[in-house]
Amino acid sequence: MSLTAQDVRDAALRIADGIKRTPVMTSRSLDARAGAACFLKCENFQTSGSFKIRGATNFARQIAVEDRPKGIVAVSSGNHAQAVAIAAQSLGIHATIIMPSDAPRAKLIATRDRGAEIIQYDRLTTDREVLAREVLARTGGTFLHPFDDERTMAGQGTLALELLDQVSDLDALLVCVGGGGMIAGCATIAKDINPGIRVFGVEPELANDTYLSLRAKERITVDNSATIADGLRTPKPGALTFPVVQKLVEDVLLVTEDEIREAVRFALERLKIVMEPSGAVCVAAALAGKLPAGVRRVGLTISGGNVDLDLLAEIAKGD
Amino acid sequence: MSLTAQDVRDAALRIADGIKRTPVMTSRSLDARAGAACFLKCENFQTSGSFKIRGATNFARQIAVEDRPKGIVAVSSGNHAQAVAIAAQSLGIHATIIMPSDAPRAKLIATRDRGAEIIQYDRLTTDREVLAREVLARTGGTFLHPFDDERTMAGQGTLALELLDQVSDLDALLVCVGGGGMIAGCATIAKDINPGIRVFGVEPELANDTYLSLRAKERITVDNSATIADGLRTPKPGALTFPVVQKLVEDVLLVTEDEIREAVRFALERLKIVMEPSGAVCVAAALAGKLPAGVRRVGLTISGGNVDLDLLAEIAKGD
Repeated sequence: MSLTAQDVRDAALRIADGIKRTPVMTSRSLDARAGAACFLKCENFQTSGSFKIRGATNFARQIAVEDRPKGIVAVSSGNHAQAVAIAAQSLGIHATIIMPSDAPRAKLIATRDRGAEIIQYDRLTTDREVLAREVLARTGGTFLHPFDDERTMAGQGTLALELLDQVSDLDALLVCVGGGGMIAGCATIAKDINPGIRVFGVEPELANDTYLSLRAKERITVDNSATIADGLRTPKPGALTFPVVQKLVEDVLLVTEDEIREAVRFALERLKIVMEPSGAVCVAAALAGKLPAGVRRVGLTISGGNVDLDLLAEIAKGD
Repeated sequence: MSLTAQDVRDAALRIADGIKRTPVMTSRSLDARAGAACFLKCENFQTSGSFKIRGATNFARQIAVEDRPKGIVAVSSGNHAQAVAIAAQSLGIHATIIMPSDAPRAKLIATRDRGAEIIQYDRLTTDREVLAREVLARTGGTFLHPFDDERTMAGQGTLALELLDQVSDLDALLVCVGGGGMIAGCATIAKDINPGIRVFGVEPELANDTYLSLRAKERITVDNSATIADGLRTPKPGALTFPVVQKLVEDVLLVTEDEIREAVRFALERLKIVMEPSGAVCVAAALAGKLPAGVRRVGLTISGGNVDLDLLAEIAKGD
């Protein structure tokens, strides 16, 4: 059974008391540079610091009561980890999060603070899939996929349901793309509310797996390790997300690493907000004049704001 | 005639279409560290990037029609400059802003972008008061005082009028203190709405002129040049603001330079917002456990978010 708009509406009710209705920001100087009215959906202010809490909460709340004592297992270098920890804690479920040992310090601490058990592994020597299967075999727990599950996709899609309620007459939506869970959920609900709305993904040039996959009409795997947008390093689209993207997403826009850094700086200097690099790609596309022709009123997803201060300082300095 | 609560209410109507109703943010982790429910009035998201637009707009809109062609003159190293430029531009009035040549680059550019004429001077060799008098003698323009004028104070007080409408049952208000315009306006309206509310100023230890003046029962001048909170370097309280502070403000809390930097970092890491150092002193007091005993629900003013990215990077790095 594939994802429906009703799944997203159901998710919105299911997670309402576990998430924030995040604000929408506007900026005259951004509009001037983008050549369109831009509406920023600020998931950097979301509980857990990113949109990931929406999918994790929608998933966790659907785990059967008899399975809850066995716990949740997740694999993540960052935002999904914190989100799963919070969603699990709120239900009194044990969470085991498998995180690379070089994950940002702030994300490790925030995840542990929420009561999750963290298993660290070395990216170079350990296969995290094998590690996850070991934990699942031992505990009988539920694996909470960060994007390629309809419960996750539906939860993440609530972001667009909210945005379209907050702002009327959007003619386009830009969504950052990692594994494609957010854009699949957002496109599904947005096209249901307004069939004429145009939905675009945004990826770093250095992590253009969905861009390439759309052109190849099949899922392409790329080496994404070099982009500063660490949340978008998923090497290929999901098996469940990709068909939705193929059906509903017009195209993927690409941004350079410099454009991402410039967007993070612009947000600090002009908007007074912290966007993490992964959360900055849509603003980067708008600032770089890459909005598709004809776009007049566009929603941009700011997916998160969790960034180590050392990296933020390096980006702010701009050299 | 001294400042009244009605002046603040009149100002709110007068400036409504020239300013933003800024959001109020909350943070579970801040509340935990402060030991009280904290409500942050985010003037860093205000038009011009700070609360100064409130006073400047209220003042400029009361300049007589026959005096408007002669222009406005202001002296400022930063936020007041941008605010006056915007207020003047919106009325089609020429603004001359006298700024030190070492003012933050971002503030110089933002002021010029708003159509103001900038006269730069060397802090070490030039007396800015003399310079201002020269310009005023030549143009016959109106001097727009950054704090020591009832039109400015009333405009700045609208911040508290808004906050008390947005959040109920506050038992205390913390306001950052430079020349005292904001706290005079805020205390006047807050005490009128709720006579039992306690109002506290916050100053850097290195800029404690109002703290000392309250104890001396007269206006004391100090050398404030060393604090990172550049907007709070006014060397003594205003002649008009100080009597209001004496009458309505319970005390001034002091914060160290390290506490200010820690608050800026906390805002970046946890709140995902940019506070300039001057705008961070109230959060600094709360984080440092310096809220007065008995305070349970407190409003904190975040006065602005205009900070050069180089300085922000230095603070973010934390060394």
